[in-house]
Amino acid sequence: MRSPASKSGGAPQPGNGVDGLTLEQIVARLGGVLVGDARTVVQRLRPIVTAGASDITFLNRDKFLPLLAETHAAAVILPESLKDARPRSGNAIITADPYLYYARLSQWFWALQQPPFEPGRHATAQVDPAARVSERARIDAFAVIEAGAEIAADVHIGAGCHVGRDARIGPGSVLHPRSIVGWGCRLGARCVLQSGAVVGSDGFGYARQPDGAGVKIAQVGVAVLEDDVEVGANTTIDRGALDNTEIGRGVKIDNLVQIAHNVRIGPHTALAGCVGVSGSAEIGAYCFIGGGVGIAGHLRIADGVVIGGMSLVSRSVRQPGMYTGAFPLDTHANWERNAATVRQLHQLRDRIRHLEQRLETLQPEQPT
Amino acid sequence: MRSPASKSGGAPQPGNGVDGLTLEQIVARLGGVLVGDARTVVQRLRPIVTAGASDITFLNRDKFLPLLAETHAAAVILPESLKDARPRSGNAIITADPYLYYARLSQWFWALQQPPFEPGRHATAQVDPAARVSERARIDAFAVIEAGAEIAADVHIGAGCHVGRDARIGPGSVLHPRSIVGWGCRLGARCVLQSGAVVGSDGFGYARQPDGAGVKIAQVGVAVLEDDVEVGANTTIDRGALDNTEIGRGVKIDNLVQIAHNVRIGPHTALAGCVGVSGSAEIGAYCFIGGGVGIAGHLRIADGVVIGGMSLVSRSVRQPGMYTGAFPLDTHANWERNAATVRQLHQLRDRIRHLEQRLETLQPEQPT
Amino acid sequence: MRSPASKSGGAPQPGNGVDGLTLEQIVARLGGVLVGDARTVVQRLRPIVTAGASDITFLNRDKFLPLLAETHAAAVILPESLKDARPRSGNAIITADPYLYYARLSQWFWALQQPPFEPGRHATAQVDPAARVSERARIDAFAVIEAGAEIAADVHIGAGCHVGRDARIGPGSVLHPRSIVGWGCRLGARCVLQSGAVVGSDGFGYARQPDGAGVKIAQVGVAVLEDDVEVGANTTIDRGALDNTEIGRGVKIDNLVQIAHNVRIGPHTALAGCVGVSGSAEIGAYCFIGGGVGIAGHLRIADGVVIGGMSLVSRSVRQPGMYTGAFPLDTHANWERNAATVRQLHQLRDRIRHLEQRLETLQPEQPT
Repeated sequence: MRSPASKSGGAPQPGNGVDGLTLEQIVARLGGVLVGDARTVVQRLRPIVTAGASDITFLNRDKFLPLLAETHAAAVILPESLKDARPRSGNAIITADPYLYYARLSQWFWALQQPPFEPGRHATAQVDPAARVSERARIDAFAVIEAGAEIAADVHIGAGCHVGRDARIGPGSVLHPRSIVGWGCRLGARCVLQSGAVVGSDGFGYARQPDGAGVKIAQVGVAVLEDDVEVGANTTIDRGALDNTEIGRGVKIDNLVQIAHNVRIGPHTALAGCVGVSGSAEIGAYCFIGGGVGIAGHLRIADGVVIGGMSLVSRSVRQPGMYTGAFPLDTHANWERNAATVRQLHQLRDRIRHLEQRLETLQPEQPT
Repeated sequence: MRSPASKSGGAPQPGNGVDGLTLEQIVARLGGVLVGDARTVVQRLRPIVTAGASDITFLNRDKFLPLLAETHAAAVILPESLKDARPRSGNAIITADPYLYYARLSQWFWALQQPPFEPGRHATAQVDPAARVSERARIDAFAVIEAGAEIAADVHIGAGCHVGRDARIGPGSVLHPRSIVGWGCRLGARCVLQSGAVVGSDGFGYARQPDGAGVKIAQVGVAVLEDDVEVGANTTIDRGALDNTEIGRGVKIDNLVQIAHNVRIGPHTALAGCVGVSGSAEIGAYCFIGGGVGIAGHLRIADGVVIGGMSLVSRSVRQPGMYTGAFPLDTHANWERNAATVRQLHQLRDRIRHLEQRLETLQPEQPT
Repeated sequence: MRSPASKSGGAPQPGNGVDGLTLEQIVARLGGVLVGDARTVVQRLRPIVTAGASDITFLNRDKFLPLLAETHAAAVILPESLKDARPRSGNAIITADPYLYYARLSQWFWALQQPPFEPGRHATAQVDPAARVSERARIDAFAVIEAGAEIAADVHIGAGCHVGRDARIGPGSVLHPRSIVGWGCRLGARCVLQSGAVVGSDGFGYARQPDGAGVKIAQVGVAVLEDDVEVGANTTIDRGALDNTEIGRGVKIDNLVQIAHNVRIGPHTALAGCVGVSGSAEIGAYCFIGGGVGIAGHLRIADGVVIGGMSLVSRSVRQPGMYTGAFPLDTHANWERNAATVRQLHQLRDRIRHLEQRLETLQPEQPT
């Protein structure tokens, strides 16, 4: 028996209790068409190349088909386009989207391997008497819950987390160790903060005195995360200046992302690592913002926009589609020559125009 | 009565005690010319669009003038260029810089809403007997103050902060929860570290052995922050290698910024989010470094320089002014074609030159 | 006598006990040819410009030779190319690589200045009874060590660190305050995590439901750091999705770097600040990745590759050498004109081709 809340506390962890699932159990819960021996037991998900006799794996794209004949996996999740293909084991589950199937099965295996969630408070946690903490929540070592904060049922506050005054954490949310939710900020249901994430830091707002010194603008808005938002490790989300910063339902944010004050992000948009979003930018729903992208302030990105990695978005993007802006990589020697020419590009254009005019004078081009 | 230092600890938080300010009180303290009913009470600052009957708002630019007739605000802070304009309420404060006025008023409202600052040490804080902590400082839960550290009056060390051996924190500074000041580092008066900020991490310095392995160079300098410096959430400022890293008076640094060892930044410069400054770079005073900018090592940026977002500064910038270097965003399809051409730019230039020569041979251009 | 583990805990700190080293002692241990008075005592390493009469300094490149005549240093470490040069003091150590010599000497001075390493556990540290912690390890205040974790001899776990279930920390490793190692992750010998570093956060992996919502893929791999890896402040290294994330021996990672799931990095590669490496990328040995570089997913970088700062690596790099891709900085006005032309580059190329064709028609070029 394990009683983590009374010992050291921490994030969800794997145990050793799983005895495996039969293919029959899997299909009964997750769907798909089962081919082969329904009583086959699988104990882990593994990549197709390394899967062994007690593993299940998946094949996502037709181009990996040659791997199917070689895998030692006990069973393979296959797309409908390969519904007649078979691995050596003869066992397969046919489904419309093997990757999605894999995601759901991975969560199931994960849950099986976890020790049971045990509510309670570690003896060292500092929970203000004026905080409202569900009896079904778990608060780990050295966590701080300030006055007025609300912690819903099935929430796991990891070791060393900080939940500020009047903040609200919705049911089923997980704060990994040493993540922070500032005063007044609100997380919906099933949100996840990875370690070191900071929700509700002050926005970067200053007016300038006549002598040039900055005068801080008190940041009195909060940050609001709707249901099913995930925030990566050491990512920062500022509170609003007057209004709020708003992160829509199902938004997924990778590590080391900066979201400035008053940003609004629509549902189910994903932001990869190292993205920076400047103040008051609005990003639509179902967007994908590539790694390292910078988004300037006070602009608007439509729904369904994909931005390629390391691009700067300096103007609004009003149509869905894929956009990019990044200098192509080259050998340093070539880059140096081309970069020098980039700085003369405007003159080059003028020279071409001049050449065209001269040639036209010399011999006018025939209309085609 | 609230006694945070004896409960859970944390960053400054809003209370509910404010009953509002009269316009007369505001003008008496912050200046400006009052028009309308001096006894009007305002309770909050709100944006002009959403302000209600108990709110004060501001109008910063003439182009927003149409909003003035529509706002429900009890009073509006107006620039001198609009000194004859009036909101519905008839109440206005005329001032040279409404945005600066707003900043100052926002701080006042904020201070009113705070519970009083209560000095003291949370029972769980670990303060070394050889640290010198002012009786007027506040140390929250799980904070660690090492031997030789000095904490001045009116300092607020948030929950879970770490102040290393011999570090010094100047009067009125605020360390938000889980920020870190390494051994020997010094903060001036009224500095602010947002959560997760690290001041005094080791610089990135290695020599190479003949076999290619890195040999660490002990980083024995410190980081020195002068008065009124603000450091954003999860921002990192390295200590110097031999000399110090120096951040000038009034410098404002946003979230997720990296300042390498031996960097020097002049007074009142601002760095937006995700900036990286390489070792030994010197940045002047009153600069603005846009989000995501990278600054190479050992170069110098003059006073009064503005760098556009996502630019790489690879050489010294000796003249004030605005500089940029970022590939323009385009649809991915267009970008792909243009990026391919960028890699041939040098040859294109040669082809233009060759065309010019041929044309000159064919028909010499007349001197103009 | 100092007993840090029983007081407040923290990272390695300087003391005041050093009385200096004679040049004879230095050469006996670190090698090199000594010129001058072997009994000269030096107490600190200082830069050549500021070094005083009790300091030793180094001269790395011939171009700094003019500084040699002016330095007040008691001794200078010189390269063999300057073996006949002398400072005023007459004392020099001649060595093949003064910078490497400086690195080793800096570590020696540093070690001398440290209080002795004292094993033990701070009274507040939460160490699970099922963790295996060497008696020769030191665990500081508010650290959490979960069940199954192994902490080897001579390890220093700083204040507020978190070591998850079944994680392993190799001998001599140092975790600076508030760094994190997630469940199951493994650090080799002599690894260093700077403050705020997170090893073992979840990778960013989601499948999409037909309605566009993301379904989390359980991240069940771990992160493995081999011997002598250093990880910068607030850097994040994700655990693997199914397989592991692997950081090779001697890899040095600066601050605010993001390493995604399943990345593999070869021995002795260095990554400067603000780099982002996307999922499943493989980076070879002895590479140098410049600051702010972005590396796309599922690609491969050969051994011995240098990538210039702020470049995007979007395809595999198969040959050693230096590569760059960054828009050159210019005044904003010039940049604006050139950036506009970049977006028309493809058409410019077509116009040049057309000009060439017309000119060829007009007067065919002679074969040369």
